[in-house]
Amino acid sequence: MLEIGGEALVLTHDAMAAGVHFLPDQDPADVAWKLVATNLSDLAAKGAEPLGVLLGYQLGQANGRFIEGLRDVLAHYAVPLLGGDTVAATGSQVLGLTALGRATHRPVPSRGGAMEGDAVWLTGPVGAAMSGFDALRAKSGDSLAYRRPTALLREGMALAPLVTAMMDVSDGLLLDASRMAAASGVSIALDSAAIPLACPEARRDEALRWGDDYQLLFTLPQERACPFPAHRIGVVREIGGAPVLLDGRAPSGRLGYEH
Amino acid sequence: MLEIGGEALVLTHDAMAAGVHFLPDQDPADVAWKLVATNLSDLAAKGAEPLGVLLGYQLGQANGRFIEGLRDVLAHYAVPLLGGDTVAATGSQVLGLTALGRATHRPVPSRGGAMEGDAVWLTGPVGAAMSGFDALRAKSGDSLAYRRPTALLREGMALAPLVTAMMDVSDGLLLDASRMAAASGVSIALDSAAIPLACPEARRDEALRWGDDYQLLFTLPQERACPFPAHRIGVVREIGGAPVLLDGRAPSGRLGYEH
Repeated sequence: MLEIGGEALVLTHDAMAAGVHFLPDQDPADVAWKLVATNLSDLAAKGAEPLGVLLGYQLGQANGRFIEGLRDVLAHYAVPLLGGDTVAATGSQVLGLTALGRATHRPVPSRGGAMEGDAVWLTGPVGAAMSGFDALRAKSGDSLAYRRPTALLREGMALAPLVTAMMDVSDGLLLDASRMAAASGVSIALDSAAIPLACPEARRDEALRWGDDYQLLFTLPQERACPFPAHRIGVVREIGGAPVLLDGRAPSGRLGYEH
Repeated sequence: MLEIGGEALVLTHDAMAAGVHFLPDQDPADVAWKLVATNLSDLAAKGAEPLGVLLGYQLGQANGRFIEGLRDVLAHYAVPLLGGDTVAATGSQVLGLTALGRATHRPVPSRGGAMEGDAVWLTGPVGAAMSGFDALRAKSGDSLAYRRPTALLREGMALAPLVTAMMDVSDGLLLDASRMAAASGVSIALDSAAIPLACPEARRDEALRWGDDYQLLFTLPQERACPFPAHRIGVVREIGGAPVLLDGRAPSGRLGYEH
């Protein structure tokens, strides 16, 4: 974050690599979409209004398709491309994007403000990107949620004046909730059955650990209502043995995607 | 460029790849320096005061050395690291840097404002990076100018209210002068003997086509003095057959480093 001319500028930079963040044979138009949308999701989590992006583009196989996807996603979110650079290099394609936004509310929401007694909320279901990824690999079924995630910019701006803490779920609900808990110095107790799924119930455990859905995870004072339909999935507790509890117990295994 | 809160924000993004912009076996501390300094040079050419940088870092061989160099260059220019991302990928290392600055003068200088009759100026000699590159490859002699270029931030800010056009010379004096000429709709006539060299006279032709010195190339109205010692190297003419003339003739061969 940067203060300039009385405004708070919110800045994000994400790098994505073929084989790590996207499949090497994925449609470059979808890669462009995801690169932009994930950065805009970071802005959404800060309640920021996007001002523009800068692209660092390593030339790849189908640069025309990338440009088409870039044009689509920038038009969809009405965000200008302010600059960038291209580079030719061997090896896995590496892409970088910087997004700039203007904070719409001060203080700017962070993951560090959750208070004991707050309710824990989630904007929508998890597991959609997971199902989409499987569909993409199987070349059968609906893969849109994985290929073209949504940045919840309007929701983030609406929530910014209300929340005590907020972040986007990029690496898995349990992992990101544990990060919010650690940053806030609290424990977060989640009610498994209250967490909405966009996949079969049998995959609930997996879906709680899968990222890429870019839902907003946020905390509100107990008595405060959410201004749009969302899901109340838990409560903030005094710091205890585990940063995140699922139905009263520390969840086992990997909590999400560490990278 | 971006208007926010009554300020003009100047934004640059450069990507650098091993084997293209730096030698694969170069000290990563020098690579970090160059990545930052070249972006700050873009800000210098706009008369902007740096506010911070964001880094997209593909993990390489000696990440600790890169971090040392990054710390050095950021401390040297008193610029904060505002954010960034790291990524692990195979193949040539690709690095990206976004730099943000605050315009200190409006309108912000561009390469497009040179006027017929203006004098053409250069802050300092060309050929230093060329000699430095040879020294680095030969592992003998002084390679500092190539490894650790200087961003002329103070000069850029001092010039911003005075110039009709300004840019940094990154790809070769003749090539960059031709770009300024094209953007301004003029011809630029250079006097070869007036161009200061940091290499033997025998290499003048080469030095005029070598980039990486990051001198500022600028135009001033004929009667206006430069506020610090600099070199008057030519004059802006009505648009003619060639965008750039060297001693009255269109220079032959490659004008600089095209990439």
